Formats: sequence, C-alpha cells, structure tokens
Amino acid sequence: MTVDVNAPPITRTLAEFVATHPSRGWDDGIDREAQRTVLNWIGCAIGAAHHPAAEAAIAAVSELAPSPQATILGRRERVDIASAALVNGITSHTFDFDDTHLKTIIHPGGPVASAAFALAEQSGATGRQFVDAVILGADVACRIGNAIYPAHYDRGWHITGSTGMLGAAAACARLLRLDIEQTTMAVGIAASQPTGVREQFGSMTKALHPGAAARVGLMAALLARHGYTASSRALEAPRGLLQTYSTQWKWDAITAGLGKDFEIAYNTYKPFACGVVIHPSIDGCVQLGEAHRLQAQDIERVELRVHPLVLELTGKKTPRNGLEGKFSVYHACAAAIIFGQAGESEFSDAVVARPDVVALRGRVAATIASDIGEDAADVTIHCNDGRRLHTFVAHAIGSLQQPMSDADLARKFHGLVDPVLGAERAAELIGACRKLADAPDVRELANLTRP
Amino acid sequence: MTVDVNAPPITRTLAEFVATHPSRGWDDGIDREAQRTVLNWIGCAIGAAHHPAAEAAIAAVSELAPSPQATILGRRERVDIASAALVNGITSHTFDFDDTHLKTIIHPGGPVASAAFALAEQSGATGRQFVDAVILGADVACRIGNAIYPAHYDRGWHITGSTGMLGAAAACARLLRLDIEQTTMAVGIAASQPTGVREQFGSMTKALHPGAAARVGLMAALLARHGYTASSRALEAPRGLLQTYSTQWKWDAITAGLGKDFEIAYNTYKPFACGVVIHPSIDGCVQLGEAHRLQAQDIERVELRVHPLVLELTGKKTPRNGLEGKFSVYHACAAAIIFGQAGESEFSDAVVARPDVVALRGRVAATIASDIGEDAADVTIHCNDGRRLHTFVAHAIGSLQQPMSDADLARKFHGLVDPVLGAERAAELIGACRKLADAPDVRELANLTRP
Repeated sequence: MTVDVNAPPITRTLAEFVATHPSRGWDDGIDREAQRTVLNWIGCAIGAAHHPAAEAAIAAVSELAPSPQATILGRRERVDIASAALVNGITSHTFDFDDTHLKTIIHPGGPVASAAFALAEQSGATGRQFVDAVILGADVACRIGNAIYPAHYDRGWHITGSTGMLGAAAACARLLRLDIEQTTMAVGIAASQPTGVREQFGSMTKALHPGAAARVGLMAALLARHGYTASSRALEAPRGLLQTYSTQWKWDAITAGLGKDFEIAYNTYKPFACGVVIHPSIDGCVQLGEAHRLQAQDIERVELRVHPLVLELTGKKTPRNGLEGKFSVYHACAAAIIFGQAGESEFSDAVVARPDVVALRGRVAATIASDIGEDAADVTIHCNDGRRLHTFVAHAIGSLQQPMSDADLARKFHGLVDPVLGAERAAELIGACRKLADAPDVRELANLTRP
Repeated sequence: MTVDVNAPPITRTLAEFVATHPSRGWDDGIDREAQRTVLNWIGCAIGAAHHPAAEAAIAAVSELAPSPQATILGRRERVDIASAALVNGITSHTFDFDDTHLKTIIHPGGPVASAAFALAEQSGATGRQFVDAVILGADVACRIGNAIYPAHYDRGWHITGSTGMLGAAAACARLLRLDIEQTTMAVGIAASQPTGVREQFGSMTKALHPGAAARVGLMAALLARHGYTASSRALEAPRGLLQTYSTQWKWDAITAGLGKDFEIAYNTYKPFACGVVIHPSIDGCVQLGEAHRLQAQDIERVELRVHPLVLELTGKKTPRNGLEGKFSVYHACAAAIIFGQAGESEFSDAVVARPDVVALRGRVAATIASDIGEDAADVTIHCNDGRRLHTFVAHAIGSLQQPMSDADLARKFHGLVDPVLGAERAAELIGACRKLADAPDVRELANLTRP
C-alpha cells in the first residue's frame, strides 16, 4: 500500500483554525444553518428519547451512578456530561432522520452537537459560544470526510462515527478555549478512537456510532485540557489515522477554503423518516394530496415512475411492521397521502397495519423509468371522480436544490417532539433555537428540552 | 480489495465459548499464568500511578464528578467503574513494561484485566470469577490478533487497543453472566470501537489505547446486559470489523483449539523497562554483575557482540534523559551492572545523569555480529584486576524459552510498587495475587492496592 510520508500538517492546521478563528467569523447564512442543524438534532433526539435503544443506553450509563451534570434531551434524568453526549448522540440517530452532509453522507449534528451541548450546559456557555463550536466542529468532521470519502466508507466504515469524534473534539476544545497546542492534542487524542463499521446497520449499534464519537471527542478535549498528550501529526502521519483507516486521503480537501467556506452550509435535513431514495415519490404524493385535499377513498390508483434503485431498495409490497414499511415505496406513498407527511409515526407498526393504509397501498403501482433521476419522481393519481392529477418532482424536498424551509423544519420538529413534550413546548423550543445565538446561557434551551 | 462473504460465524462462536466454557476449564498452568498476568498488570499500573499521564487522565475523568465505585491502582481516589478501567489501562501501559503475547505483540493484561477488575470489584466477584474472566477475555483478544497479525499492525493499528476491547467485552460479559446472545451483542458492540494508531507511539495516547479498550469493552457488556443490540456478525461480515480494518483475516486461527489451548499460556513479562531488543545484553550484564559481585570501579570495559538491530534502534551513545536512556544499549548495560536491574527507575533522568553511570557507559562498547540472534547477546567484561568474565545469552530472560520465574516477577513487582506503597504492602499484594483464584471477594485485593 502506498504511504505518504510528506503529508501536510493537517492536525495542527485544523487545530489552529479551531482555536483562533473569530467568533461569528462567517456569513449570517452559516449561523442560520447551524441553528437549523441544532433544531433538527434536538427534534430527532427528543423524538427517540423513549426508544428501546435510549432506554438500554440510559440503563447502561446509570450503572456508573453518574452525576446529574447534563440533560438527556426529552428526558427528566440528568447524567454526567460524557454520558449525556453518548445518549444524545444515540437518540439523534436512532430514527435515521437526522441531518446529512450530502458530499460525505456524514450526519454532523449527532457527534458534534451532542458533545458540545453537554459541555456547554455544564459550563454555562452562551448560545454564541455553542453555535461557534458547532460550526467549527462540523467543519472539521466534514473536511476530514471530504478527504477520505468515498474510499473510506466503501471499505466499511460508518463515516459519521469515524470522523465525528474529530469534530466533537474540535467543538469541545473551542468551548474550553484550549490554545492551539492543546487543541492539537485534543484532535490527536480523538484520532486514535474512530467508531463504527457498516455491518452494524440494522442494529442499535448504528446509532451508537455518533454517540460514541461525541463521547470520545468530549473526553479528548478534557484530557488535552489537563495535559494529556498525543502525536501532533496524529491525523496525517504514515501511521496516523487517515493513512491507517482509509486508502484515499485528499489532503487539499481539508484545507481548501478553510475559514472561508463552511461545510455546515451543505448540511441537509431529511423530510421523511426513511431512505432518501423514496423521498421524491413521497414528496409528490404529499404535494398532490395537500393541493387537492385528497382522501384515501377518493383515490382509484397511484402511478409512480421512479428510478430503478427505488424498487431495488424499497420494493416491499406487503410490509409487516414499521421497519419494513421504511422499505416499501407503496406504504410510504399511501401513508404520505393519508397523513400528509411521512415522519417516524407514519412508519410505526400501527400505521403499517391500519386498514385504510393497507387498502391504499394496494392501489399504488410503481414502474421503473430510465429517464428519472435518483432524486426525481413522476407521480400520477387517478381519482374515482375521473380526475387525473400529476406532478413531476425534479429534486425532492430536503435536497440541496430544494432545501427544507424553516416552516418544513418546524413541522418536522412538531412531528417528533409533540408526542414527547407537547405542542406548546415544541413551539417554545423552536423559538429558542431561532434565537440561540443570542442566548446568554444555553441552559435555558437545555431546560426546555426536559419534560 | 477482496471481500469474504462466507466468513464463519466468529462473533457467535467466541460468544458461545465465553458464555459457556466451564469455570477453571483448563490446566492449572493456565490459572498460574493468569495470576502472573494479573500480578504484572497490577505492578505496572501501581508503578505509574503518579505519572503525568495518570494525573492528566484522573483530572479529566474527575470532571465527570464520578461516583466512587472502583479502585485506581496505587491511588486513594475511587472513580466510576468505566473511568477506573480507563485509568488502570493507561497506567498499566505507561512504562511500556507490561505483558506481551509474543505471537501478536498484544499486551492483553491492560485492556482485559483493567475492565474485569473494575467490574469485579463493584459486583463483589470472587477471585475465581475474575481469573476465569481474564483467561477467557485474553483468549478472545489474542485469537483475534492471531487472525489479523501482522497485516493489521503493519497497516498502522496498535493491536493492543484494536483487539483489546473485544477481550474486555468478553471478560465483562463473563463476569455479568450474560447468555450467549447477550455476549454476542457485547462483543458486537465493542467491534465498532477499536482504539489506537501507531503514530501515537511516543505520546501519552499510546497508553490510552489499552485504557480506552478496557472502557469500551466494559461499557459494551453493560449495554448488552440492558438489551442494546449489535450485528451478530459484527466481527466477520464483509463490512464487519476484521474485513474493514485489516487486509488479512485467518478465520481458522480464531477457532483452532478453542477451549483447549489458551492464549494466555503464551503471555510473557518484560524484565527490563525498555525495548526488547536490548534485553539480552542487559540480561548478560545483570548475570555477570551478580555472579561476581561487580562494582563499577572494578570494571575496565564491557564488550558486547549484538544483533544488528541493537545498534540501529538503541545506539545512542550519550543519552540526555531517561527516555533517551531507553534507546541506549550503553546506558542500559551500565545501569544493569550498577543496580543489578533495569526497571523504570534505572531509566529515570537522575540515573541517566549519575556520574558513576555516565562513566561506566563510556566504557561499554558494542559491535554487530551477524551470528547473534535477535534474542541473544555475547557479553564480556574486562576487570581492572585482569579477570575476563564472559557469558553468552542464548535467549534473554522474559522470552518464552527463558520465562520470568515467580521470583523474577516478584522482584520486578517490588521495583515498581515499593516506591509507591512500600515493600511490606508490595509483599502482601504478591501473596494475595498468588492466592487470587481462591479469594472469596476480589475487593480484598483491590483494597491492598490503595495507599
């Protein structure tokens, strides 16, 4: 295998950037995207706060008799900051409904915000400090991802957990105001602890990956603060992380535009709680259903023309439970028409078994069309009254071309949070996130996330 | 890259072994080696209990306000079990003086015993249960090592941390009496969290690797106990750990002789606190010095004939501090004659600067001999009174052919522990370790490790 003995000093370059870049040293649009990232992260985590994965993780960390330092989003319990980072990272990813940096398919919110929020809450950081940390931490994780994607992912690593600890370390180093040398050590310590292989997809350990990454990054920053040392070339050296765990390392991708372009600008948010491949079809069904106020009984049949991957990945005709429903374009479209959305609750066992949903999905047909792109779909609904309703979705909602609006994100948030904390609290949380950068203390936001 | 889609069910096979193998289901020699492994692990950890790496790690975990659940070896503080596993794993490796499974150069004691001891102490396990867990855990880590060494190590992974979490998870699963399915999950959860790249060698993060592995393994077992799930093929699947992080996976090496041969039988213990390459020379000097009661002023000169690697790796003529002393065969041999040993204190800054040591090392000469093996050395000491003393070391003490005797280990233990806890307590600890398998509660041993 080729080894590059002349790699540039990436570890130190990133550390210098994180330690010295000015607060709010970017366009307002970057701040806004960070606030949206945080809102989406909180919504996903609260939504999954009582999932069996959350219960198991909380039971496990409770065996450490943790001190009540930080909030578990959506729960009454408080635990030590490292355990809070772990659990919130887990719940943020449990529904596979979190944010996506599409260039690398990293979900930066989970590892970065989970670590930074726990530390910020304990230290009483301002909203400004927290937002700065999230932006810089996400930048570090995604820039490392840019350098190694797709070879690293193809090899088997779940890239969110295997880069996220670097972003989490960077974010926490920033919050702790570590200097360049200490930040280099924090990133270096984290560089020995990547998490996540893709074989875990389908098990709870998939969601452990961002959680463990958050925990590792937070502890790496604390270790560095107290003088623990690492190699200052831990990322780039021939036996450093990138050359050890990837076969591709585009060093330039890490430094190009550093401090000018911010990767969080490319963050996106899933509108629907299922694989991205059926999002265009769902989008079209939601649009037609809303525009024409359709009821299930109005519909004779639904005809989809879709990209070949749709039927390869989600061609399940008769899903038996919620999880299988995520792999059924038929169920997803039926639910989308009936409920006007396709959030986590539309993929519950109950909804998959509902007679009206079952009946309508039997009237959904999908055919492969070679002229339809991966993020497109052609949707036609034939009504019993003879109407023929049609839409072509060129880019599904949630893509970079068709981003979720603030209203879309708020609706998604309500879908996740209302069942746990109620609609009123959810609305308060949305308001608090929008003003997060001006908050004198992130603990206000943290308090709102607890029942 | 080749992918093996037909890998045997290694994860489940190892889990079944760990969950069902009978207590003490092996020869007494295996039990004895486990007891020696534990003694050596405790000695190394206590010896480094006040090293700056230990202070930094303890300060970092103290930020979590940990509950006093488990012992930090050699310290008064008690911390939560996960933090204890971390810190004891760090200190056990800080002096590079710990055990070595020579087939894989894994140091199994650090990750496995550190995790198992913390959990055993909290749960009040018997000595028998703890010893069983260490033997089974070390077997799992080293068998995985057998399957991937040397390709995995050559690629850049520090194999102790990248297999140790599996051994730690197995040991803790055994202590928690998890069933086969739960143990499969514990090993599977750990399989997403390897630690350690070799670029960290020379920094404190090298010692973090066994510590983090211990912590990960312990938490994986706790997560599995509470129902957290992982892939049951997390180790062997195409996108599982072994195929993701190694280019070599000899599946047979994992299962050959499972339950009959125990890898801990191949564990060895360093007699000297430096790289193994100069151990034969040190061994010869200690032997001649003791046999002839040599004093530095008696010696005209020392002549070594050594393997070429000795001068390549440790040819430093005038070391300036303790760390450099470890890379000087001249210093090591001078100190070995003067002190009759070469433990951590013989590689202190003070000893490296001592006039008598400096003077004697100037009279040590080394020449390369192509007929001398890597674990051999030819040592001749010319005395001022005309005597010519000679010994040929065919296999250095500490090798499999010339293992450390119990007396050797006890002497090493005293060298490490006496400065921290005093000679009397050190002797008590040696006695307690020898009877460990019969101890009704490991807390007796844990109590003895605290000042």
